[in-house]
Amino acid sequence: MTRIKLGMVGGGNDAFIGGVHRIASRIDDRYELVAGALSSTPEKAQASGQALGIARVYDDFKQMAIREARLKNGIEAVSIVTPNHMHYAAAREFLKRGIHVICDKPLTSTLADARKLAIAAERSNALFVLTHNYTGYPMVRQAREMVARGEIGKIRVVQVEYPQDWLTQQEDFKQAKWRTDPARSGAGGSTGDIGTHAHNLARFVTGLEVESLAADLDAFVPGRQVDDNGHIMLRFQGGAKGMLWCSQVAPGNENALRIRVFGEAGGLEWAQEDPNYLWHTPFGEPKRVITRNGSGAGDAATRISRVPPGHPEGYLEGFANIYSEAADAIVAHREGIEPAAEVMYPTIKDGLKGVEFIDACVRSSARNAAWVKV
Amino acid sequence: MTRIKLGMVGGGNDAFIGGVHRIASRIDDRYELVAGALSSTPEKAQASGQALGIARVYDDFKQMAIREARLKNGIEAVSIVTPNHMHYAAAREFLKRGIHVICDKPLTSTLADARKLAIAAERSNALFVLTHNYTGYPMVRQAREMVARGEIGKIRVVQVEYPQDWLTQQEDFKQAKWRTDPARSGAGGSTGDIGTHAHNLARFVTGLEVESLAADLDAFVPGRQVDDNGHIMLRFQGGAKGMLWCSQVAPGNENALRIRVFGEAGGLEWAQEDPNYLWHTPFGEPKRVITRNGSGAGDAATRISRVPPGHPEGYLEGFANIYSEAADAIVAHREGIEPAAEVMYPTIKDGLKGVEFIDACVRSSARNAAWVKV
Amino acid sequence: MTRIKLGMVGGGNDAFIGGVHRIASRIDDRYELVAGALSSTPEKAQASGQALGIARVYDDFKQMAIREARLKNGIEAVSIVTPNHMHYAAAREFLKRGIHVICDKPLTSTLADARKLAIAAERSNALFVLTHNYTGYPMVRQAREMVARGEIGKIRVVQVEYPQDWLTQQEDFKQAKWRTDPARSGAGGSTGDIGTHAHNLARFVTGLEVESLAADLDAFVPGRQVDDNGHIMLRFQGGAKGMLWCSQVAPGNENALRIRVFGEAGGLEWAQEDPNYLWHTPFGEPKRVITRNGSGAGDAATRISRVPPGHPEGYLEGFANIYSEAADAIVAHREGIEPAAEVMYPTIKDGLKGVEFIDACVRSSARNAAWVKV
Amino acid sequence: MTRIKLGMVGGGNDAFIGGVHRIASRIDDRYELVAGALSSTPEKAQASGQALGIARVYDDFKQMAIREARLKNGIEAVSIVTPNHMHYAAAREFLKRGIHVICDKPLTSTLADARKLAIAAERSNALFVLTHNYTGYPMVRQAREMVARGEIGKIRVVQVEYPQDWLTQQEDFKQAKWRTDPARSGAGGSTGDIGTHAHNLARFVTGLEVESLAADLDAFVPGRQVDDNGHIMLRFQGGAKGMLWCSQVAPGNENALRIRVFGEAGGLEWAQEDPNYLWHTPFGEPKRVITRNGSGAGDAATRISRVPPGHPEGYLEGFANIYSEAADAIVAHREGIEPAAEVMYPTIKDGLKGVEFIDACVRSSARNAAWVKV
Repeated sequence: MTRIKLGMVGGGNDAFIGGVHRIASRIDDRYELVAGALSSTPEKAQASGQALGIARVYDDFKQMAIREARLKNGIEAVSIVTPNHMHYAAAREFLKRGIHVICDKPLTSTLADARKLAIAAERSNALFVLTHNYTGYPMVRQAREMVARGEIGKIRVVQVEYPQDWLTQQEDFKQAKWRTDPARSGAGGSTGDIGTHAHNLARFVTGLEVESLAADLDAFVPGRQVDDNGHIMLRFQGGAKGMLWCSQVAPGNENALRIRVFGEAGGLEWAQEDPNYLWHTPFGEPKRVITRNGSGAGDAATRISRVPPGHPEGYLEGFANIYSEAADAIVAHREGIEPAAEVMYPTIKDGLKGVEFIDACVRSSARNAAWVKV
Repeated sequence: MTRIKLGMVGGGNDAFIGGVHRIASRIDDRYELVAGALSSTPEKAQASGQALGIARVYDDFKQMAIREARLKNGIEAVSIVTPNHMHYAAAREFLKRGIHVICDKPLTSTLADARKLAIAAERSNALFVLTHNYTGYPMVRQAREMVARGEIGKIRVVQVEYPQDWLTQQEDFKQAKWRTDPARSGAGGSTGDIGTHAHNLARFVTGLEVESLAADLDAFVPGRQVDDNGHIMLRFQGGAKGMLWCSQVAPGNENALRIRVFGEAGGLEWAQEDPNYLWHTPFGEPKRVITRNGSGAGDAATRISRVPPGHPEGYLEGFANIYSEAADAIVAHREGIEPAAEVMYPTIKDGLKGVEFIDACVRSSARNAAWVKV
Repeated sequence: MTRIKLGMVGGGNDAFIGGVHRIASRIDDRYELVAGALSSTPEKAQASGQALGIARVYDDFKQMAIREARLKNGIEAVSIVTPNHMHYAAAREFLKRGIHVICDKPLTSTLADARKLAIAAERSNALFVLTHNYTGYPMVRQAREMVARGEIGKIRVVQVEYPQDWLTQQEDFKQAKWRTDPARSGAGGSTGDIGTHAHNLARFVTGLEVESLAADLDAFVPGRQVDDNGHIMLRFQGGAKGMLWCSQVAPGNENALRIRVFGEAGGLEWAQEDPNYLWHTPFGEPKRVITRNGSGAGDAATRISRVPPGHPEGYLEGFANIYSEAADAIVAHREGIEPAAEVMYPTIKDGLKGVEFIDACVRSSARNAAWVKV
Repeated sequence: MTRIKLGMVGGGNDAFIGGVHRIASRIDDRYELVAGALSSTPEKAQASGQALGIARVYDDFKQMAIREARLKNGIEAVSIVTPNHMHYAAAREFLKRGIHVICDKPLTSTLADARKLAIAAERSNALFVLTHNYTGYPMVRQAREMVARGEIGKIRVVQVEYPQDWLTQQEDFKQAKWRTDPARSGAGGSTGDIGTHAHNLARFVTGLEVESLAADLDAFVPGRQVDDNGHIMLRFQGGAKGMLWCSQVAPGNENALRIRVFGEAGGLEWAQEDPNYLWHTPFGEPKRVITRNGSGAGDAATRISRVPPGHPEGYLEGFANIYSEAADAIVAHREGIEPAAEVMYPTIKDGLKGVEFIDACVRSSARNAAWVKV
């Protein structure tokens, strides 16, 4: 088995998500990180690259794209883990040179960029993978599989929420600053940073698209330029209804993404902070808990589990599953074949849907939370 | 201590809530049930009254009001536990004769009735108590006390929900039938039956009134004439925002009323199905659980607790607390004094607010879930 | 329906359990408390009796037994809620006059008294009911029913525990003092006060008797004269094994009685602090939660439930179930017939088993926690 | 940063724990797996090595030890992940050649081997690391730190349990077979496989050694040659008492290691299946939950956490922490210095204590669960 040569854009010192991507790429031993443009400052880029023991360190992503594309053993794929506003420009450079892109979410900081990137991805021969990592949790796959098999019947109601509390007060550290700066994060604050995860999770589990929404967004912390709390009502294709709450000002919530789906024949519930459990209630029967790799878990969950039930897997393993699914797709691409049918990962389409969701939220909120088409 | 002589309207065989009121009135030994008009059918009224060992059984409530008012030792108070559409007519008869009324919620089946009843209550010398029983739980009182003392700071976000699953399918038993019949229950289905509880709980805990709302109501079960699921966005006076979800078609939820309140300095969470716990997170500190009568519980909770922490009290004890608070008020009224400051129970005002809430939900939903004033 | 005339011995001001018995007797409206000898001090007995509005107040239990037995409408039953060392003498007086006894646990403070009381009960025509109240919880009945029906197969392992923390330090209030005074509570401290509940619960759920045990008892608080922590290994008839832990010095535990039973085909788990849930795992299937009166609950649980699932019942309702079962038995006795087969309550035999358990624990501990026959 | 060259003994196809060790070694990028003797069958060893892309594949561990020791860039450390009975012989070969050993638990299958290995480790210049992986969980470190700082006062009671259900019935797959074969696993079944983890966890958190124990062991499944359930009472140095339950026949338990420690001033509770939470009750205050990397978490936990609170880390990350601690120690050893004071991992001493624990359990059980010195 030959490991996939990987590059990274962004993810230098102090970055949260860059380290996550690196661990995720290592867990299943499918990648080898060999090149990086880890910071927008050349000095920092060099320092970070050396600290990580990366073979080829570049001052900027364009230089890296050009040179790696020319190398005989250059990178096959690149992880883009910069702030949102740089995703488009970076991704474009690699896509046009046939290097697969694994990009953090949301896709871009503007809808215009998202649309351009969607075109770029379509024109490229390379794959585009968006790390909506929560779809990599085995029990999320289990939920999706159960919905698809009709185990809870036609869906009526979707409740999805993603509260956090880390921005309850004004914060000055790096992560807080760029994520609340519309120039770097985009027009959505909590909606962009975490609401998109909730939106994507709802789409992934239910298989339904949001047709319209009404969003009541607030920036509760004085001086904050983007929303830090969003109350959003959803209408799905086919008549299902939903509520989506995202917040960064909800004390007592660390990273409390949670989804509940109710159909004519049953209900499902999953919470990210306790990710090895999926609660299932067939209507009229006792509630039960399906565990990762345990009794009741189906193929969709077990194929991406590593250890026996009761040995908890977590955030990094879920993230790694996205990387490993991408690896399967990249290897198949390398060989000119289709990956196995069960291989799945978020694509450019999911990314565009996410940015359209942010845009719809912001438009609705500007019109006093009126209903808007997504 | 002289027990309060109590009458009951409604609550015959097969009724759920009548039995609850009777137990609630007995738990603290403050009442004695001596009269009843337990059914709209005289035969059933007689049969039910005898089965319960009630001293004076009446064929209808008007007869009971007239006669009891004339008796030397007639009832001091009456519990009205009929379907909603009869609350107004029954309550009026007792109020105008100076007999205190303890009435089930929602106040009435129409806004017009609610307004008339509010006037009747104002004109009467008698007390009016509405059994929004969930405000009788000790840990709900604890939450209210903590909010009032500023322990979570200025409130920003309120999340309240009340899902059930008992109407997931078409049902033909008595409870299901009248509660889904607009002629008897009113224009609101889930909004009226349980949404009002959620709305009242949010008002009680936060001390804030809802100024406007947008309600997306559905009747998912074919043929159902009233809503069985409601998604409602709330705007409170002073800028707090909220979401309220009520549903009777959410499999896996038995009676899952839950409220979460987030302020500038902390968060609180309470769930009716596990009512002896109140979760509190002062921002920046570990989450803790305050238990009924346990460490951290304040006067508001302990004064209405009966047994030590760890010995769970439940729904009936919470309901009994409303009855016992009413008893304190009735005894004070009897003596011509004010009840102690800490005595509290839902009043006609709360009832009117509830019916206005239902009305606003129905109006909003009819206008495609537009924002309406409450 | 004629209410049963009830007397009470003990339970004056400051007593915890007397108030519990009174509420429990009222909840289902089967009893009327008409006589009392509520304190060993005549003045307090009178004051308490008047405060409770009891018709006939006596200075001592013997006087009460004699006089009530002679009254035409004297009490049919008496609740004995004194400290343990007085149970025997009081119960004897009522039993020999044909008055049914409802006695708090443990049966007596000494094994000798227990044996004498067993004989007295056998000789009496009156019923003897021991308030091992935890067997009155619906989901405990559910567990027993499931075990009896073979749903978890032959039992192998029983884990039962009853930790509290209220005696973590030296305490001087009344409850703490008599319960840690061997002259009043008996030789067992935590073993007698709560270990007996755990022991009885294990017997009740499994239907198995403990044959032998090894008990390592400690009095961790300096100066304490009885055990405040007990570690006990159990061997049941038929080969099942168990562990029993009781403690009054386990910070974080309010009243955390919990039982887990594992058989060849499945497991069951119940916790007193969250009593409306019974967890069931058929081997090889997902764990499920059966709720009181909800899906999956059988007749044994639903016949003693009052409100729908999701409306929690608690400690007082469980206690009331013992009283109501006793009422059924008393009414049947009054009519000279057998109560219905499903009526069940703890008897003198259970009480004797409990005191034998305490005795065995103390004997074992005195022999360095050696194995002893129970 | 130069990665540590790592070899592996055992861990070929079908092995559970070998894969875990490999992932654990990769997560923090401190190791590079370059050599392996992955199976006792040369063909399988070759096949497994090639499947994993290992550079140097050996037919047996002795050959590997000899050759690697001679290579200029040979392995610095070896992971031994065979069945228990082979640990001693394999470890000895590497220790005597100065190659650091990372060995799975229990240390050996016999006490004689354990003692010999302890001598071998003492004589060697190389490090010996035992993967009692549960001590690598951040919240276990947090618990240990809190105990050491006196936050719960002098310890009185330790409750530790490790139930599983995977051996509830007779099983024929590979993992089940060797772990229930005394020739390969040792005299302890559940006591050896998981009881040792519980014992080690109790020692680690409390800092106390077990002085004596009484063990009632059973093999409930017909024909099973080793215990599958153990009830063990513990006496610690200094007067604390404990109970330890290990079981492989407890349906509903996947991998439910749990520890509760109670001191004079408070209690702590941690459960492996929900490892990101540590419950803490200072006596007389509300119970609180300290989260990994969250509010209330101290240095001991945060230094070995990778992602923010609410992003769960699991079994593999905890295991990786042992590997990374070992890496710190190996690098320090390479440089001839002491590792930082906070670096900690289970040592040969812990391994010997574990085998002594198994031996004491088996001795006690053979004497009718009498008390024996450990």
